[in-house]
Amino acid sequence: MSERTKSPVTVLGLGRMGTPIADAFLAAGHPVTVWNRTAAKAGPLVARGAAGAATAAEAVTAGPLVIAPLLDHEAVREALGPATAELRGRTLVNLANSSPDQARELAAWAAGHGADYLDGAMMALPQTVATPSGFFLYSGSQDAFTTYRPELEVMAPAHYFGTDPGAAEIHDLAVLGTGYAALAGFLHAAALLDTVGTPPEVLAPLAARWLGGMADFLPELAREAGSGSYSDGVSTIDLNRAAVGSLVGLSRTHGVATDVHDPLKALLDRRAADGHGQDSFSSVFELLRTRNPSKG
Amino acid sequence: MSERTKSPVTVLGLGRMGTPIADAFLAAGHPVTVWNRTAAKAGPLVARGAAGAATAAEAVTAGPLVIAPLLDHEAVREALGPATAELRGRTLVNLANSSPDQARELAAWAAGHGADYLDGAMMALPQTVATPSGFFLYSGSQDAFTTYRPELEVMAPAHYFGTDPGAAEIHDLAVLGTGYAALAGFLHAAALLDTVGTPPEVLAPLAARWLGGMADFLPELAREAGSGSYSDGVSTIDLNRAAVGSLVGLSRTHGVATDVHDPLKALLDRRAADGHGQDSFSSVFELLRTRNPSKG
Repeated sequence: MSERTKSPVTVLGLGRMGTPIADAFLAAGHPVTVWNRTAAKAGPLVARGAAGAATAAEAVTAGPLVIAPLLDHEAVREALGPATAELRGRTLVNLANSSPDQARELAAWAAGHGADYLDGAMMALPQTVATPSGFFLYSGSQDAFTTYRPELEVMAPAHYFGTDPGAAEIHDLAVLGTGYAALAGFLHAAALLDTVGTPPEVLAPLAARWLGGMADFLPELAREAGSGSYSDGVSTIDLNRAAVGSLVGLSRTHGVATDVHDPLKALLDRRAADGHGQDSFSSVFELLRTRNPSKG
Repeated sequence: MSERTKSPVTVLGLGRMGTPIADAFLAAGHPVTVWNRTAAKAGPLVARGAAGAATAAEAVTAGPLVIAPLLDHEAVREALGPATAELRGRTLVNLANSSPDQARELAAWAAGHGADYLDGAMMALPQTVATPSGFFLYSGSQDAFTTYRPELEVMAPAHYFGTDPGAAEIHDLAVLGTGYAALAGFLHAAALLDTVGTPPEVLAPLAARWLGGMADFLPELAREAGSGSYSDGVSTIDLNRAAVGSLVGLSRTHGVATDVHDPLKALLDRRAADGHGQDSFSSVFELLRTRNPSKG
């Protein structure tokens, strides 16, 4: 018996992410048609077996699934503007950096041209495409996600967050924010240790190992925050308030900025003042759910 | 040939960390003498092969190395107050939660009684003692660290940060701070996604995987911060300022607190205003090294 024929895939945009994505589909045995605004970028992929299209419109006609890892919203509109007729009846997967509103706008635009739409956010680096480290978030057409999930999973594990086309970008920003906070914390730690002569390179592997432990701890935080039940934790507001207070005090003594940790200190103080000192650390969640009325 | 005889180890304090520590030494073949203020806690360890001492003084006399994973500074002073004569000529490893100043005070106190002193900070949970996930930070007597490193490594990989007895606690707070920032970022993300109906339990594994990627990224940030050279990065201040700005704006739109990310947003804004928009994200380090003169 012959292997089931793999469906054709079109990749629009061969930048940092587009090239490894097209390569992943080639490696998985899909017929791949590529297009890039600067045609020269397609050369190496064509040499590896992709079909090069002269125009975006021509690339779109190559198959039912059009994946667009273009730079941003503008680039998507520019690339697809001359290909609206060809989009009808196909599925567009927009992987550009977009705001939730831009994703919604593009979904409406695609619908107006008779195309199904999925918005995707790539939680990956070029080198983690098609590896277990990367993952992509999607929202928009449920039908498209179900139909093309096998193709989407060629790029990265695929997670779907509902029919609002903006939802993938919202989840993207939330997950990114967890990482930004960690990086800010690391840079603060590096600044503090700089005052005692420990270089950032010595801190990095220790902080990385500790972050790994914190990652293992997230399901417990999530369970508490999800249930709203904070009485079982061994790691209380009071205990962590003392530790964060020590960190802020020490930073001040050592003349480094306390900006990164001031908010958590203030949140823990508010939680303790509200009589929740013996609740779990995770109960800070309750303060983050609504805007602090004292702030602008 | 017979195996080299393992040196005797004394463990004072059999709380959450003391018990797995004593067990680790038993498992490694060391003669272990244990003491706990509440004697009953020693029972199970004695059943597993440890010697139970009736007093802290008696426990201290059992060998040259006294490891004290007691709760806090007060508990150490209380436990060792009646054992000062017995401490002479031995090495005390204080693993209690302490401030840098408390560690320095205890080092001076130990020196006054003729004992060598190492301060230790346990970056571990009870279940990660004697596993590759935990690690302990030390400072104080260089001699003691060198002599007893094999014993210290029974508990966890051991890292030494110089003769200032307070240094281990400073490094402990810095590493903890990286983790606190990550957890605050996660709880913010959970609050944001709560507004679109995604429960924290769905976010947790995605955020954990993303934190793992950020941990892999720390050596690069450290290299840039350590060298003060920020011109090579692909991830610029401007790029990340836009992303953090989107996150803060979206959080505001969704009615959740922006406290956690306001400081990073302000730091990126300052960096851009200072003409460093094309520098690497890691250059935020330069702002954290000194206190913001506009802040109290």
